[in-house]
Amino acid sequence: MSRFLKEKYNILEAYTPGEQPRDGEYIKLNTNESPFSPAPEVAQILKKSDIERLRLYCDPCSTELKASLASLYNLESENIFLSNGSDDILNFAMMAFSDKGAIFPDITYGFYPVFAELHGVEYEEIPLKADFTVDENDYISKDKLIFIANPNAPTGMELPLESIEKIIASNPDSVVVIDEAYVDFGGTSALPLISKYENLLVVRTYSKSRCMAGARLGYAFASKAIIEDLEKIKFSTNPYNINSLTAKLGVATVNSNDYYEAKCKEIISVREYTSEKLREMGFTVLSSKANFIFAKSDIIGGEELYLKLKERKILIRHFAKDRIKDFNRITIGTKEQMDIFLENIGEILKER
Amino acid sequence: MSRFLKEKYNILEAYTPGEQPRDGEYIKLNTNESPFSPAPEVAQILKKSDIERLRLYCDPCSTELKASLASLYNLESENIFLSNGSDDILNFAMMAFSDKGAIFPDITYGFYPVFAELHGVEYEEIPLKADFTVDENDYISKDKLIFIANPNAPTGMELPLESIEKIIASNPDSVVVIDEAYVDFGGTSALPLISKYENLLVVRTYSKSRCMAGARLGYAFASKAIIEDLEKIKFSTNPYNINSLTAKLGVATVNSNDYYEAKCKEIISVREYTSEKLREMGFTVLSSKANFIFAKSDIIGGEELYLKLKERKILIRHFAKDRIKDFNRITIGTKEQMDIFLENIGEILKER
Repeated sequence: MSRFLKEKYNILEAYTPGEQPRDGEYIKLNTNESPFSPAPEVAQILKKSDIERLRLYCDPCSTELKASLASLYNLESENIFLSNGSDDILNFAMMAFSDKGAIFPDITYGFYPVFAELHGVEYEEIPLKADFTVDENDYISKDKLIFIANPNAPTGMELPLESIEKIIASNPDSVVVIDEAYVDFGGTSALPLISKYENLLVVRTYSKSRCMAGARLGYAFASKAIIEDLEKIKFSTNPYNINSLTAKLGVATVNSNDYYEAKCKEIISVREYTSEKLREMGFTVLSSKANFIFAKSDIIGGEELYLKLKERKILIRHFAKDRIKDFNRITIGTKEQMDIFLENIGEILKER
Repeated sequence: MSRFLKEKYNILEAYTPGEQPRDGEYIKLNTNESPFSPAPEVAQILKKSDIERLRLYCDPCSTELKASLASLYNLESENIFLSNGSDDILNFAMMAFSDKGAIFPDITYGFYPVFAELHGVEYEEIPLKADFTVDENDYISKDKLIFIANPNAPTGMELPLESIEKIIASNPDSVVVIDEAYVDFGGTSALPLISKYENLLVVRTYSKSRCMAGARLGYAFASKAIIEDLEKIKFSTNPYNINSLTAKLGVATVNSNDYYEAKCKEIISVREYTSEKLREMGFTVLSSKANFIFAKSDIIGGEELYLKLKERKILIRHFAKDRIKDFNRITIGTKEQMDIFLENIGEILKER
């Protein structure tokens, strides 16, 4: 740290991303990436001429990509916001709509409190119930900016749409952010509520179900006025933050939607298979609607299991937070990867 | 605007980027892009496998790209910060180092006051001298965060390195940001001063001399402590904001450095040629060290000239600000483009 840093940032604790080992040796089940490549049509769409055209700035309005998503989701372009990953959108939402403070669960995406600290937003972390579900009553008529990841991370558990709607309806003067990073793996989207509630912001990402974490593309749906606010913040920080190649890949991805839906189904099937096998080995596995599961063993501690798997070149994600320290978050890979994972789990348990 | 937007942002005026027409009909001399494509080796570096690997997050530390730039500039990786364009870096600097307020010229890059307004930073805009040069005395011992674009935009004029050093040395307790977006077109860099002054931050971009505006890549040099602060802000907003393809293109660009140096020389030569021709037609052309010139006619007003050229499918940049409203900023294109531009100027002047 330099002695020039603004005092309020001295105590800032940045978000800790999952490990990104630079050798390819690991089976990587730690950062909720897709085990599948982008669709074949997407992988071939970039031409030499696209690289040559990089000399020009990208379209700051992402006109074509917005139109493409609008068509897929049956919306207007004015209801869509695009930015450099959904983190960017969540950060902008925290900046823009937090006049009255923010609330979110104690166990959820670790970036929400980081954004709040960064922007000096007062926030409250509301404990999940003992079974790790969100209690809708904790969010009724709070009149604060609300963040709910649905399905939640790292639990993978879903809050039913009826509960989501009650929360949105009871906070008409505050924005409710539904972070749907993982919704494509069997969750129910709040998207149909956009036309009914002007305080709803639904945030999505290309990083999970669209197999493109490295391309940096997040999108969001909301009323036209909310989108305008987000555009204002974006145009006051970095208007060109989606590069031209990513925008083109984004359009191609929409055009290959069937491929991605099929891959999501495959992930769901492998998730159920893996959950079942772990339960057979005595694990508690929360019911997941995401591309990961959250599980604890009755035999071995969370951190120890994480370390033992790492020795065996399998990465999963462990969180030190007290309430969940017995658990690990395990990204769903291919069936073959999960079989190797399960085999290693079996061996580790046998060693005890 | 929604009724949910934080009150302090109501009056925010976002930066207005230059026009980005989506048809290719215009000769685009309005946003300081390069008329040249990236080097042939760069244009061919991306393979299908790179797109396939987009399923994985990018390396948030950009290890390889940092090492590559460190080697080119004879620095340590710890002295280098990378982000999604230099705008991102300037924004982070405004957030991080502005405890005592900020100062910058009245005529300079239009994003500085936008960042200051966004983060509620008190700032002062110090008038350039009548000849549009920076008066070094205005920045001596100010003890505030200082932004100096060198060469300056939209004037293209350079402040000598001796003046830059005096400013840095006289403000030991504040960060001095030297924005060198245009330095590769004949300017003198403050980079050698990095090892001498811990309060210096030098900001650069791939958007101009590296012909890659659409790829979104900015870099900065500073003491290790300042870089750590910027990393902390980045890791508290969007750690993965440089996508994998851009990182790979960035390394390839460093490896093709000779190509870019040759293209810069070409731009410089065409800039001098264009300046001379305009002066012959009665224009006042400021002495530029950038890839653009700032010029006014003694016959036709700045806005009128801009509009007349636009009719003729040539875009240049006009700023409404009172002090410079007679001028236009003209990006240097290829010799062929500039000859068409000059021919059209001749015709427009003849019409009067």
